[in-house]
Parts: sequence; structure tokens; C-alpha cells
Amino acid sequence: MRIRIDFAYDGTDFHGWALQPGLRTVQGELQAALARALRVEEAWVTVAGRTDTGVHARGQVCHLDVDPEVLVASAGRSPESPVDALTRRLNGILPADVRVRRSSEAPAYFDARFSAIWRRYQYRVADATACYDPLRRHEVLHWQRPLDLDVMNAAAADLTGLRDFTTFCKAREGSTAIRDLRELRWEREPDGTATATVVADAFCHSMVRSLVGCLIAIGEGRRSLSWAKEQLAAQARSSAIHLASPRGLTLEEVGYPPDAELEARLLVTRNRRQADELD
Amino acid sequence: MRIRIDFAYDGTDFHGWALQPGLRTVQGELQAALARALRVEEAWVTVAGRTDTGVHARGQVCHLDVDPEVLVASAGRSPESPVDALTRRLNGILPADVRVRRSSEAPAYFDARFSAIWRRYQYRVADATACYDPLRRHEVLHWQRPLDLDVMNAAAADLTGLRDFTTFCKAREGSTAIRDLRELRWEREPDGTATATVVADAFCHSMVRSLVGCLIAIGEGRRSLSWAKEQLAAQARSSAIHLASPRGLTLEEVGYPPDAELEARLLVTRNRRQADELD
Repeated sequence: MRIRIDFAYDGTDFHGWALQPGLRTVQGELQAALARALRVEEAWVTVAGRTDTGVHARGQVCHLDVDPEVLVASAGRSPESPVDALTRRLNGILPADVRVRRSSEAPAYFDARFSAIWRRYQYRVADATACYDPLRRHEVLHWQRPLDLDVMNAAAADLTGLRDFTTFCKAREGSTAIRDLRELRWEREPDGTATATVVADAFCHSMVRSLVGCLIAIGEGRRSLSWAKEQLAAQARSSAIHLASPRGLTLEEVGYPPDAELEARLLVTRNRRQADELD
Repeated sequence: MRIRIDFAYDGTDFHGWALQPGLRTVQGELQAALARALRVEEAWVTVAGRTDTGVHARGQVCHLDVDPEVLVASAGRSPESPVDALTRRLNGILPADVRVRRSSEAPAYFDARFSAIWRRYQYRVADATACYDPLRRHEVLHWQRPLDLDVMNAAAADLTGLRDFTTFCKAREGSTAIRDLRELRWEREPDGTATATVVADAFCHSMVRSLVGCLIAIGEGRRSLSWAKEQLAAQARSSAIHLASPRGLTLEEVGYPPDAELEARLLVTRNRRQADELD
């Protein structure tokens, strides 16, 4: 049977999502906890968004396949359902900076990565005019100069839509950088923090941090409003665009279609993007 | 002239508010930063709520008196107002876990401690049924057993009002434990965290953590609903009430009367409570 796991982590002390020998990664911690909770030798999960070193997640999703008998046996004589027992046991094993929000049985055609129809990230910046909340300092970038969000939103409007984001993506062989950027919008929080909401069908590698770095340069007046559009049109990665620090970035939510549409969706994305970096 | 400073801190790595030789305290850090920003030998502040080791603050308030010429000189040739320049300079000096939200000129009769008419704290618990946000784990108490908030709210209703809170206060000579507990109410946040909002005119030492410890014992079923009322009536501190951990506690806001009422307010509180622990 297929299990969907909704989980969250503080990326500060992790070398990103992906398993790397000898390094502390979220995948490493989660798979080790799953193997222990299920009393199996090893567990492999597929994740919706492979985050970089230092990036956080509140609404991350993964799936794994489990023998139903193994799941029931691992729950012991707990009065909860086997998936609720799994959630509880995982949170007892996992370190404090990773938490499982929910485990649930998923349809056979649910794939955490290829079924996803959108990903929503937020990027938080405390600029010169804002005082960040010290209790949330690990998820906010501190920026010395003031940012003009109106100008940044005007520049962001030139970037949204179905476009080739080669300029904003780390190149990978055999993959395209065509993505549907549905939303890229800055707002002031009540405490003065500038928060970007970024939604796309999928993101290529370092795309959000690259978009944010470009808009910060415009918002602080170092670049003109038209610079974002020009960079996008160039369709070439440029060293002039600085990657924004991972500490301000959080994967907030991943969207999936209704269960009835999962099978059709999976056939489409698997065919179209087998070689793609779909995150 | 009198300056009011609104500030926030993550209490995790502090030995509480109050200055202690050789220990890292919020008062120590703030006064050192003020002395440096104002280029004076030392600075002394009066705070609204003296928090214990590990307790956080989002809406803490203090005041200090500054020679207007010293303030103007410290601002240099900055285009901002001298108080805004002070805020900016303080945030440049202070460690990342203390942030000044605002500095402002206050009326001569404003006293951060004695002018306050209410203090609002929040206490956050992630119990067995909740998954806390790992990015906010430093301000949430993790509790293994499930809490029944309806029962806790029923017990809390027996504690609100103008009462003698001797049971819930660390005894201090010459001070009374009569306080007006205006609100004590538990709610479930969207992520399942149980959050108590606690408002009183003032709190005696360790009162919030003692009230929360009492209600947690009732909410997890270890004590009956009437236990809170019985303990209050006993008017004696009891070892049966466990202090809840400081990590879940945050001072969120301090209320003051309109400026025109400050002078009258100050005469009342100074006379009535000179020897009191007014926090």
C-alpha cells in the first residue's frame, strides 16, 4: 500500500533534503526513522520538492510503499489506526527539527512528486524598515537596505506566466526550464517583514532564490525595473543575479488534483517530464 | 527626556531579563547596546515585565531617561529622527535574538512598569494530538499526552477575576498576590497547537507558568476539574502544582492608558504597590 506523509522541517541544521553519505539530511533522518518505526531494513521515499541546504518546509509531502502487514505489525496493540500510530511513532523517533504532520493511506496512483500540480513557497525578508521577530529569525533574511515592494511587484509581473526560466535555473542536461509561474507577489506583514508568495506548477533548481535575488536588486534600487524582463529574455544564466540566501525560503504547500484525476495526471507528467527536474 | 523602547527577544539562550553578573541576560545586552549607541558610560532601563530564564517576549516595553543633547549627538548626521536613528543603531549592535521594534519619545509620566494597565502572555503547548511547527519549536512546549481544552477552560473560568493568587505565586516578603486575572482561555491553533491567552493587570512571580501547570494536570486527566478552584481557595503554594516549562511562554503585549491619564495612573500604582512584584 502507498502511504502519503505530510511533514515539516527547520532546514537550518540540514544539508538539504537529498540523502548524502556522511551528511545530516532531511531524507536521511526521515528514512532512518521510517525504517525504525516500521521495523524494516530500509525505507525509500519520493518527495514533492527537493530543497537545498538551509531551506525550510512547512507543507512538504512524500510517499512510500509499505507492505500492509508490516504497517499493522508496527502499530502493535495501539488503539489508533495504523497510519496514526505511524505518525506518533515517527515523531517520537525524529529529531525536534523535523515533524510529521500527518500520515495517510494514498491511492495507488498518488505520486508525491509527479502528481503535484503546484508548489507554493514563501520568501521572507526583514529589510531596513522592518524589525523581524527574533523568534522567527531562522526563517527570515536580514537585509540592510530598504526594499520598494511596489517596484518589485511591477518587475515580478513581467516574470509570471508560462515561460522559459533558463536565466533563473541551474542548468541540467536533458531538462527544460519551461515553467508556469502562476504567482510572484510581495506583501508587507504587520511586523514590517517583506514576504514573497511564489507559486508555480514546478520549479527548476534554485529558481525561487534566483527570482528573489533579481527582485531584491531592483527593490533596493541597484537595478532598474526593466532588468528582470531583460534577464528573462536573455535566456542565459548570469552571474549578475545573486542567489538569495536559503534561510528566507520555506516550502509552504504542495497542491494535488482530486483522487479521481491522479491516474491521468501521472501518465501526462511522467511522459512529458521523465528527464526533468520537477520540484 | 524619556524614551520608550518596544522590543522582542527569543529567551532560549538568556538567563532571563534581570541583570546578573557573568550571565547573559536581556537587560545586560540591551543596556550595553544602549550605552554604546548613545556613547555614554552606562544606561539603565525599567522594564514592563521581568521575564524568567527561557521565557520569550514579542511585545516587551522599557523606558530610560536620556539627555536630549546626547540623543541628538548619537544620531550623527542621519536624515532620520533621533529616535529612529537610535532604533537602527541598536539593531546594528544587538545580537540577533533581541530586536528593537520601535523607540519613541514618551511623556514624562510614562513608566514602562508602573503605567502598565495590563499584560498579555501566551502559552503554547503541542500535545499528543498536535504536530508543532518545527520552525517554532523554541516557543512551544511538547507534551506527550492529549489535553482536553474544554475541561481546561471550565477550570480556568474558576480562576479569573480579582483574586488572591498566593497559591500560584512564589512568595515574596511585603508583597501581595492579589491580581485581576481578566482572561485565561485555551484555543486550538490551525496546526493543532493548544494556546492559552492570559491577561491580568499584573502578574506575580511565576504566576502564568503555575496556572498553566495546574490546568495541564487537569487537561490530561491527572486531576479533576474542581482541583484548580480548590488550590486557589487554599491560598498556599503547593508542590502538587508543577511549574510549566518557560519555553512555551511569551510576553505578547503590554497595555497602557492614554497619555492624558498617565500622571494619575502613576500616583495610584506607586502608592498602592511600591513593594509589590508588579510584572
